[in-house]
Amino acid sequence: MTYELYYWDGIQGRGEFVRLALEEAGSDYIDVTREPGRGTDAMMAIIKSEAEAHIPFAPPFLKDGAQIVSHVANILFYLGPKLGLAPGDESLRIFANGLQLTITDFVAEIHDSHHPIALSKYYEDQKAESKARSAEFRTSRIPKFLGYFERVLQRNPAGGAHIVGNALSTVDLSLFQVVEGLRYAFPRAMRDFEERFAGLAALHGLVAARPRIAAYLASPRRLAFNENGIFRHYPELDGES
Amino acid sequence: MTYELYYWDGIQGRGEFVRLALEEAGSDYIDVTREPGRGTDAMMAIIKSEAEAHIPFAPPFLKDGAQIVSHVANILFYLGPKLGLAPGDESLRIFANGLQLTITDFVAEIHDSHHPIALSKYYEDQKAESKARSAEFRTSRIPKFLGYFERVLQRNPAGGAHIVGNALSTVDLSLFQVVEGLRYAFPRAMRDFEERFAGLAALHGLVAARPRIAAYLASPRRLAFNENGIFRHYPELDGES
Repeated sequence: MTYELYYWDGIQGRGEFVRLALEEAGSDYIDVTREPGRGTDAMMAIIKSEAEAHIPFAPPFLKDGAQIVSHVANILFYLGPKLGLAPGDESLRIFANGLQLTITDFVAEIHDSHHPIALSKYYEDQKAESKARSAEFRTSRIPKFLGYFERVLQRNPAGGAHIVGNALSTVDLSLFQVVEGLRYAFPRAMRDFEERFAGLAALHGLVAARPRIAAYLASPRRLAFNENGIFRHYPELDGES
Repeated sequence: MTYELYYWDGIQGRGEFVRLALEEAGSDYIDVTREPGRGTDAMMAIIKSEAEAHIPFAPPFLKDGAQIVSHVANILFYLGPKLGLAPGDESLRIFANGLQLTITDFVAEIHDSHHPIALSKYYEDQKAESKARSAEFRTSRIPKFLGYFERVLQRNPAGGAHIVGNALSTVDLSLFQVVEGLRYAFPRAMRDFEERFAGLAALHGLVAARPRIAAYLASPRRLAFNENGIFRHYPELDGES
């Protein structure tokens, strides 16, 4: 069965956490809104459907036959075992889900660094507030979140190459994406990242070197980061005057 | 086995979504930080533990023997089947998890209505920004989220008494709490709630009338809403001049 991923076209956004899992597994999937003849209309048709009982609140969502799965953490929890990217041990799987939900919260904060007041307004209309929020985000939140993941890596009883157990999971792939995005958006705040978070830096390198991930990153399927997505590079939010 | 819930004392907060499930099921549980002789130190000892591999990022978290489960949605996904508060059908359970994660996002936005700039600062230090964010929250986000849940209720193929299937689930309990909290925090914005969201209003009434929930709400275990929690009543954020 071909998986159908539904997400906004033109940005990596939250959809990228799902794409990385599907790409690493070599899955057969369709990125629906980028398909000629389908596009964003096909996604909105499901969100606004009168016939579908299990409508999602927002993208991304996945269709696996009749099953609709919404929210990144839910999609990855669902896909993980099917793609061979989840711990086999149930207890570790619950821990992995908690880590993924911490990433969810972190991503929401990353988004709000450039949209602290209103989702419906442009960044330019909330620039002063974004500067204030980003200052807190850079000095307090980035170190808190990355410090947490670094501690979990260092504590992993199976060794610190992976965040859970001794094999690659969707959480490793998501942490790669978070690091990649933060380096794009906040290069100044992240400049001593390797020294401060050596375990995460190694994990980032390990994921980037996976053959299928490397091929994906070099392909046209991987869109570039841009200022419509979640990770946006605005120098003034990175502490440049 | 007695469940141990760890959360900040003195507020309902995110812990309340877990308490409602444990109370409805008549579970044997300990609210650890409210226990004489344990308190918040017992919670911080786990978060800062050097011995524990599966440290949580933040409260609430649940201990079930050696298993630590963090994040509300993860805790409820874990507890649901054990407490008889999850759909038996796997497909519905995935849908329920997606709904719970939509509630997670909504709760984060409710929190940020009074903390749009910095978690580390007081409300009074971000009052102007809170007013701007709350205006958007009241006029755009409350109707969007409640409208979504209302549509899901109305579409439920098993009838609209419950949000998923034909029996009470943790998602119903969480929706009760969201409605209860919004009515406390934004009474003005919520004044025509019953007319606009009739299905949600009926669900709120159904949950409030459950004997164990009614007993819990009348007990000293249910703390009152207050201005240290997530749902805060600041008249100026509710559109009063």
